[in-house]
Amino acid sequence: MNPGHFSWPARVYYENTDAGGVVYHAEYLKFMERARTEWLRAAGFEQTALLAERNLLFAVANMEIEFLASARLDDLLNVSVILEQTKRVSLTLVQTITRSTREQPETLLIRARVRIAMLSRDFKPVRIPMDLLNRLQPPLDEQP
Amino acid sequence: MNPGHFSWPARVYYENTDAGGVVYHAEYLKFMERARTEWLRAAGFEQTALLAERNLLFAVANMEIEFLASARLDDLLNVSVILEQTKRVSLTLVQTITRSTREQPETLLIRARVRIAMLSRDFKPVRIPMDLLNRLQPPLDEQP
Amino acid sequence: MNPGHFSWPARVYYENTDAGGVVYHAEYLKFMERARTEWLRAAGFEQTALLAERNLLFAVANMEIEFLASARLDDLLNVSVILEQTKRVSLTLVQTITRSTREQPETLLIRARVRIAMLSRDFKPVRIPMDLLNRLQPPLDEQP
Amino acid sequence: MNPGHFSWPARVYYENTDAGGVVYHAEYLKFMERARTEWLRAAGFEQTALLAERNLLFAVANMEIEFLASARLDDLLNVSVILEQTKRVSLTLVQTITRSTREQPETLLIRARVRIAMLSRDFKPVRIPMDLLNRLQPPLDEQP
Repeated sequence: MNPGHFSWPARVYYENTDAGGVVYHAEYLKFMERARTEWLRAAGFEQTALLAERNLLFAVANMEIEFLASARLDDLLNVSVILEQTKRVSLTLVQTITRSTREQPETLLIRARVRIAMLSRDFKPVRIPMDLLNRLQPPLDEQP
Repeated sequence: MNPGHFSWPARVYYENTDAGGVVYHAEYLKFMERARTEWLRAAGFEQTALLAERNLLFAVANMEIEFLASARLDDLLNVSVILEQTKRVSLTLVQTITRSTREQPETLLIRARVRIAMLSRDFKPVRIPMDLLNRLQPPLDEQP
Repeated sequence: MNPGHFSWPARVYYENTDAGGVVYHAEYLKFMERARTEWLRAAGFEQTALLAERNLLFAVANMEIEFLASARLDDLLNVSVILEQTKRVSLTLVQTITRSTREQPETLLIRARVRIAMLSRDFKPVRIPMDLLNRLQPPLDEQP
Repeated sequence: MNPGHFSWPARVYYENTDAGGVVYHAEYLKFMERARTEWLRAAGFEQTALLAERNLLFAVANMEIEFLASARLDDLLNVSVILEQTKRVSLTLVQTITRSTREQPETLLIRARVRIAMLSRDFKPVRIPMDLLNRLQPPLDEQP
């Protein structure tokens, strides 16, 4: 994989919608968390193993999220993960959710900046291990 | 409390509804679980403490559920718990969800029979402690 | 597709788990609903179009569900749909959720019987259209 | 009510937690949405009636959210709504989620700034009606 850009599909089911006829706003956070999980898995890290073997977990520390347009039942969405910045104990990701259909060009629904912190099992911040950082960061000559 | 009959209110928010305009079917299971939790709490048992101090938890073993009518956004529901049967390692509860409004008499939305099993922390069936059983069961002379 | 047997994968994410360390019981209903949606889609029916063009929707009328074993974070599950019985206004489905891993043979986690009723947009029972029934039912010579 | 400051309780049930042993991050958005709903209700506005009678709904336009500490199963939380700014078609709210227990002083878990936009039924921005604004805004002499 190109670790600098990753995307994962998400289908909208009834479980994700609300009585307004569109996706309930908190559900987009689930779609983004699924994409982060698959981004880690694609880099070789399962969260279950990170916790069981190394006592490490990622938790969302803060998030800015813009709700630009609404997804609807049966929509097929595309959720992206771009690593924007790495710090000692946290990563900042830019995530988007877009929808493409045969009828319409790609529509940007969600744009978010998400900072995830590395924590120990007892929820204390800890340094992100170098092997993890190395596999998540794009090599220098691919960086913009 | 009368341990033989317990009820707990639940308000319907956007989070509980779906694009059909009514409550998403799996959400009723959450309402019923909240009522069981409060039924245990009213009898003096917090699930957090049951797990931390006694390595015990209840898990749903099986459920029969009838969806008779739909709840809608803003509805105020009433969720009941009636202890129907006690066994060595499980309890069978009858639960209903009803809605009352000024305009309409009480409407029965959900009727369910739920068997919850007592498990150890590693998910093995264990005998329900006598102090728990005694506080959940109505005294003999109140039983129907 | 063979309309008599259909299955759909479901990955377990954090969103599906609870503090007991396993999948929250109501989440299995979401997995089963996703599989029913994809079963309908595989037969050529999108629920969005059924509602918009023909004022029809399926709603769960009742369900018996056995929780036999627990799924965990990162598990990859398989959710099946088998059409057991067709009636004038409802279908009865048998659904299972299983887990397969490299280490273990297939484990049955959930077994359910789900009756879904065909409703009009105002939630009245209506006859299931013949074209829908025909595409969901296996041809006679494939039936067991 | 004092429309400038409003708070609403939220109990943490199993449905809100995840396998990390704490509340799943997206669930805090549900708690905040419940508080906004009750804040509107306390000012005399039911969202069901706003939509049915005036074709109006509020949708979250953007959100900045800091996850400062984690809530756990059985916690009783307090969710606040403070109106920070009113514009022609949107309101900006500051929301917090805190936990108080007998053992500990109040702990701030979540701090968020939420902009909600007034939309028509077809999701176009529309001017917030004056009667709604008047009842949500604190009188001038109570403003800080």
